[in-house]
Amino acid sequence: MGGRGAYAKGVAKREEILAVALEVVAKNGCRKATTSEIAERVGLTQPGLMHHFGSREELYQEVLRARDVHDLDEYYAPNPRFEGFLSVIQHNTQVPGLVQLYAEFAAEASIVGHPAHDYFVERYAWVRGLLSSAIERAQEEGEMGPDLDVAEAADLIVATSDGFQVEWLHDPTIDMVGRLTRVWELLRRSSWPESGAGPT
Amino acid sequence: MGGRGAYAKGVAKREEILAVALEVVAKNGCRKATTSEIAERVGLTQPGLMHHFGSREELYQEVLRARDVHDLDEYYAPNPRFEGFLSVIQHNTQVPGLVQLYAEFAAEASIVGHPAHDYFVERYAWVRGLLSSAIERAQEEGEMGPDLDVAEAADLIVATSDGFQVEWLHDPTIDMVGRLTRVWELLRRSSWPESGAGPT
Repeated sequence: MGGRGAYAKGVAKREEILAVALEVVAKNGCRKATTSEIAERVGLTQPGLMHHFGSREELYQEVLRARDVHDLDEYYAPNPRFEGFLSVIQHNTQVPGLVQLYAEFAAEASIVGHPAHDYFVERYAWVRGLLSSAIERAQEEGEMGPDLDVAEAADLIVATSDGFQVEWLHDPTIDMVGRLTRVWELLRRSSWPESGAGPT
Repeated sequence: MGGRGAYAKGVAKREEILAVALEVVAKNGCRKATTSEIAERVGLTQPGLMHHFGSREELYQEVLRARDVHDLDEYYAPNPRFEGFLSVIQHNTQVPGLVQLYAEFAAEASIVGHPAHDYFVERYAWVRGLLSSAIERAQEEGEMGPDLDVAEAADLIVATSDGFQVEWLHDPTIDMVGRLTRVWELLRRSSWPESGAGPT
């Protein structure tokens, strides 16, 4: 049926656009990448491009979402572990354009009223959930102490990796995997119960 | 003398421009803020503005540098302590526009060849140095264990605070000072010697 063919073509075109958008962002940075350059490179007019993605913001959001879907499938399924998180970080060192897009777009989207703000709020919750599961699993297996505050430890790992990756963009000699392994070790060696409890 | 008056006026105009640039960035975000809006609000033409600051990138860099000079004087002098760092973070919650500019511009500047790249590399080294001094002081005073790897702990605090602040921009209910106090507590409770040493 022609309808099915058109649908399949639409999906393929969408994927082509996401890939090209990522290349253009990787080359120019998020601020200087233009939808007109992306449209030209995939053989569409700007209105044609906007038929697939309603706005620049939606396009970038979908580039990042496609990455997350890939990473979930490749590195976290069926059960998230810290090793899977490290594999994502290792993979990130091979795709600096994606890391750059994530860092710049996350900061841009934090301004009041930005259309991608909700996406990032949801994504933070998603990553914290993955890491909380990984920490609970490590606790079940006796690798991580039972008195560790899981949510707090997950928050720490998310923030640390977000911070390291912007620093790494400026200085690619930084060993993100090594540093995050050491943070995990710190959490493993320490008891870190809720505030106020335990020795000082 | 007229020369001295012109110099003083130049300094005052420069400070006015920095203040207005920050307001415009806080309202629109780094990407949508324009030098034409800034020029108009300080009663200059764009070439007139560029007489004071050679480029948009130099202007934003100087806004951030002016913040650092202020913070160093207000919160770190004469000797940096972790409490001073927490005061900076507390102050940051009152100036979200600056935090937004820092986060977005740091990510933007990480692209190869960006004119503000060197500024951020130097700034990372500066902040790490301040925190290393604060940690060493805490060690001297017996607050922090002697086997803590100072450089590694400083790296961790810098990355964590950078990560928390982008998350905080998306969710201002996050207590950055509380979270960073807890990270300090984690480092204080733990022994965290160089990799490979100590119990596992």
